[in-house]
Amino acid sequence: MMNLIFDNNVGACLDEQADSLSSGKIFLLTDTNVSNAVLPKLRLLSQAVARATVITTAAGDVNKNLDALSSIWTKLTEEGATRKSLLINLGGGMVTDMGSFAASTFKRGMKFINVPTTLLAAVDASVGGKTGINFHYLKNQIGVFNDADAVIISATFFNTLPATELRSGYAEMIKHSLLKSKAAFNDLLELTDVSSIDPDSMLRLLRESVGVKKSVVERDPTETGLRRALNFGHTAGHAFESLAMKRNAPIPHGYAVAYGMVTELVLSNMLSGFPSELLYRYGSYCREVYGSPAITCDDYPDLIRLMEADKKNTAEGKINFTLLEAPGKVKIDNIVPADEIKTALDITRDLLQ
Amino acid sequence: MMNLIFDNNVGACLDEQADSLSSGKIFLLTDTNVSNAVLPKLRLLSQAVARATVITTAAGDVNKNLDALSSIWTKLTEEGATRKSLLINLGGGMVTDMGSFAASTFKRGMKFINVPTTLLAAVDASVGGKTGINFHYLKNQIGVFNDADAVIISATFFNTLPATELRSGYAEMIKHSLLKSKAAFNDLLELTDVSSIDPDSMLRLLRESVGVKKSVVERDPTETGLRRALNFGHTAGHAFESLAMKRNAPIPHGYAVAYGMVTELVLSNMLSGFPSELLYRYGSYCREVYGSPAITCDDYPDLIRLMEADKKNTAEGKINFTLLEAPGKVKIDNIVPADEIKTALDITRDLLQ
Repeated sequence: MMNLIFDNNVGACLDEQADSLSSGKIFLLTDTNVSNAVLPKLRLLSQAVARATVITTAAGDVNKNLDALSSIWTKLTEEGATRKSLLINLGGGMVTDMGSFAASTFKRGMKFINVPTTLLAAVDASVGGKTGINFHYLKNQIGVFNDADAVIISATFFNTLPATELRSGYAEMIKHSLLKSKAAFNDLLELTDVSSIDPDSMLRLLRESVGVKKSVVERDPTETGLRRALNFGHTAGHAFESLAMKRNAPIPHGYAVAYGMVTELVLSNMLSGFPSELLYRYGSYCREVYGSPAITCDDYPDLIRLMEADKKNTAEGKINFTLLEAPGKVKIDNIVPADEIKTALDITRDLLQ
Repeated sequence: MMNLIFDNNVGACLDEQADSLSSGKIFLLTDTNVSNAVLPKLRLLSQAVARATVITTAAGDVNKNLDALSSIWTKLTEEGATRKSLLINLGGGMVTDMGSFAASTFKRGMKFINVPTTLLAAVDASVGGKTGINFHYLKNQIGVFNDADAVIISATFFNTLPATELRSGYAEMIKHSLLKSKAAFNDLLELTDVSSIDPDSMLRLLRESVGVKKSVVERDPTETGLRRALNFGHTAGHAFESLAMKRNAPIPHGYAVAYGMVTELVLSNMLSGFPSELLYRYGSYCREVYGSPAITCDDYPDLIRLMEADKKNTAEGKINFTLLEAPGKVKIDNIVPADEIKTALDITRDLLQ
């Protein structure tokens, strides 16, 4: 049973959870960025953090790899960690994914608490039990499904983040709102300067947003069907992200998802009756907050190929989308022909440029 | 839900299970020994085996390591395995442990069937969901609990095994009998030439022995309490085994357990009233069948340190034993001071040398 806690008083929460979970040694995994920006402060607020043996891993998703994982296992081994020891993973999704996998596999499973420090990790990586590392350039190729013993979600660390990172995480919150209701969706579109929100209001939004993901995951813990609802925006989004990366002009994951949601709302409008009014509202929000992807009609063949290679596609050469009839009304497993996708890309460019 | 099958008709069983579990690609992990001794024959008896992509790993527990695991992940990646692919692990516990861990972590979990080819793997590794690899000289330091989709237990491969291997597996059967009853224990001690038993009789003994383990595991799947009964003989046994491995003079796991059971029956006798008569009977059986471990009193500090590093120890620096008041009467969680352990090691050497 995972304890999912929303509280801006992280130090006290962490101590309470650590006390109730373990009377053994405490370890804390963090990365080189968080170690500077967050750790010194948190050490003053939490006994558990103050007495933890710190393991610092190199920041950045390219370092979420087998070498780094092996170093974490080695450190835990050398410092005498047992199954009853506790690992606190403090950082973004890279730290919580890899640290959760390290803890899930160390002596076949030790206790662990995740404390996400980025908006993206709080909203996306905190529930769902996905743990793992990249392998052979494939994202999250190796891992297990395993829930943390506790996850402490707060908005207190976000002031250390650049606005780009905040907007990136906010795109996933918009996705969750689209899976919930028109009211939730309209609510989020009120906020165009994500950096301006105060921690208490952000915590309230996070509680709602993570709640949406939690209810989907609980009905499909190992991703066999329904959970694909959470892929909304991601089939087109991953294609935008991969194309940008191929051209050595990478864009943040959340920005790609923001653009991808435009394309997939267009498809939802064309094929499933998603209301035009909401599509246009989101289109203009996206243009204002996220700008537009640098694509022309010459890029369509590349984008289509990237969508075909998506791992969600079980049948070869078919492109599978999650679509919406309306906010909160999800249809998974829609095979869409390339011509319709091209039309949707045309409209995406019209809306964003 | 795991299918646990006892049948000497392995080919047909395997095809039936493979058909019902997966319509995707089939992979088969085996080691260099089994690949020669068993695989050619099994290919003729099973369609699934005949069409499988074979991954061969170097035989021997010292090769149950991160490098070998990484090679398996690489091969699965390169050959386009998906979550719906099937991995058949054909071999001893080394193959089934590592293959089960590889399958449990590849894309966060693919299908897998275990087909133990050694007595030890059949009796010990077939139920319980323990998967993993050795790390930094520590046995099974990294792994997860995860059941195979199916396990096919047979006695048909045992004629390819050296007597040493058969005796090694038989030690775990003796352990199970000690957890059950005096009658079961005395029964197994009647057989001193394990190679002489026919496959049908062995299958019957296996069904009984695995039944003891299964009933314990079902009451405690993640080893939080009761399951530690199955660790009887293993706290001392693992220390004997690890010490031998560190010195490049490895001994079979079952021999280490056979010696470990002497030490732990001595402790059971000293601390929990286990009958002296049964201790002496087992001591002389062990000396006759398994010989004795190559240790002197100079090895005690190393052995104690290895016991302290054992995963079963929840409190750092304490050594935790499962002890017996009598056959079938188990007491878990006995913290035993180093001095008593040294005395028990003295008596172990007296009984076996």
